[in-house]
Amino acid sequence: MMKKGLLLVISGPSGTGKGTVCKELLKREKDIKISISATTRKPRDGEVNGINYYFVDQDIFESQISKGEFFEYAKVYDHYYGTPKKYVMDEIDKGNDVLLEIDIQGALQIKEKYPKGVFIFILPPSMKELKKRIVGRGTESEEAISKRFGSALGEIDYVREYDYFVINDEVEEAVEKIRSIIRAEKCKVKENIEEIISRLKEEILC
Amino acid sequence: MMKKGLLLVISGPSGTGKGTVCKELLKREKDIKISISATTRKPRDGEVNGINYYFVDQDIFESQISKGEFFEYAKVYDHYYGTPKKYVMDEIDKGNDVLLEIDIQGALQIKEKYPKGVFIFILPPSMKELKKRIVGRGTESEEAISKRFGSALGEIDYVREYDYFVINDEVEEAVEKIRSIIRAEKCKVKENIEEIISRLKEEILC
Repeated sequence: MMKKGLLLVISGPSGTGKGTVCKELLKREKDIKISISATTRKPRDGEVNGINYYFVDQDIFESQISKGEFFEYAKVYDHYYGTPKKYVMDEIDKGNDVLLEIDIQGALQIKEKYPKGVFIFILPPSMKELKKRIVGRGTESEEAISKRFGSALGEIDYVREYDYFVINDEVEEAVEKIRSIIRAEKCKVKENIEEIISRLKEEILC
Repeated sequence: MMKKGLLLVISGPSGTGKGTVCKELLKREKDIKISISATTRKPRDGEVNGINYYFVDQDIFESQISKGEFFEYAKVYDHYYGTPKKYVMDEIDKGNDVLLEIDIQGALQIKEKYPKGVFIFILPPSMKELKKRIVGRGTESEEAISKRFGSALGEIDYVREYDYFVINDEVEEAVEKIRSIIRAEKCKVKENIEEIISRLKEEILC
């Protein structure tokens, strides 16, 4: 039996900087694979099929849903977004860790289907800081900001459903915590221990 | 509510080098407290009361047993050895992490009384290497070596009762794994999460 990889599911409210944390994590852990989402929306300028998203037609997406080919999916306004199961499971079976940066609803769907995943919730150091970060983007109206902030506030409660929380005060430190979580998870006594025990014992017979 | 410290219980068969690993860990993590055992055996040359052990008389030790003052204890030949509960719990309540390097039987007793502890099992990289290390001590007869090796072999099965396993191939690497486990444990969503959620939310009212 080959050692399986970890499914790392990272999410958190908007404005917590989970995107930056994931980007920095991937710089330091070059062997981690990223899961690429599928979507039915049209590519934006510069977006490349198979890199930013898999861009697929609605009828294909819907047929994939009916065949159970998604780990999770959602319809946002008129477009579908989803995480294809096959790539993720193939990599995990090969022993590679796969990172999934995903919203909370998606993470909870995945947890139902793959509870062995490592679920990490990124928290802001404070709500004041979170507001500052949302405002700081400078791209949204006051109404949109206050809507986004309100929903972030509600989303914080979902941290209870996760395995780990990481407060993103300094990106560097948050990334180090996630790397520690990954290393620790690989030391956990799980089903893999039987193989280690028998490997250790078999040796004596040689 | 103050954040509690972790009880780190490190054990493993003899010859796995858990002593060296613990010593190196303490050099790098200077805030970790070490639990000092009590014993009824006489101090050896150079051993200091309160540093190597608490040296106590048998009647005192037995009265402490009856008052439930030990986390675990054992009688080895004619002498008692035990882990006084008070010091460990006081430090944990103050928010300090406490390290307990202990044999497997002791660890299992502690697990019953304090399952929240972090139980780490040190494994040898191979049984061949383990034998080499036991022989390498050069202090024991062939019979003693083979007895020690046989019991180490049987003890390996107990890893299943632990939370984590750490293969001690390179001390440096084993220590880094344990440090990662400690950091990850501090990120775990446990009862402490309620305090974090309410602290984040209260802030908005200010």
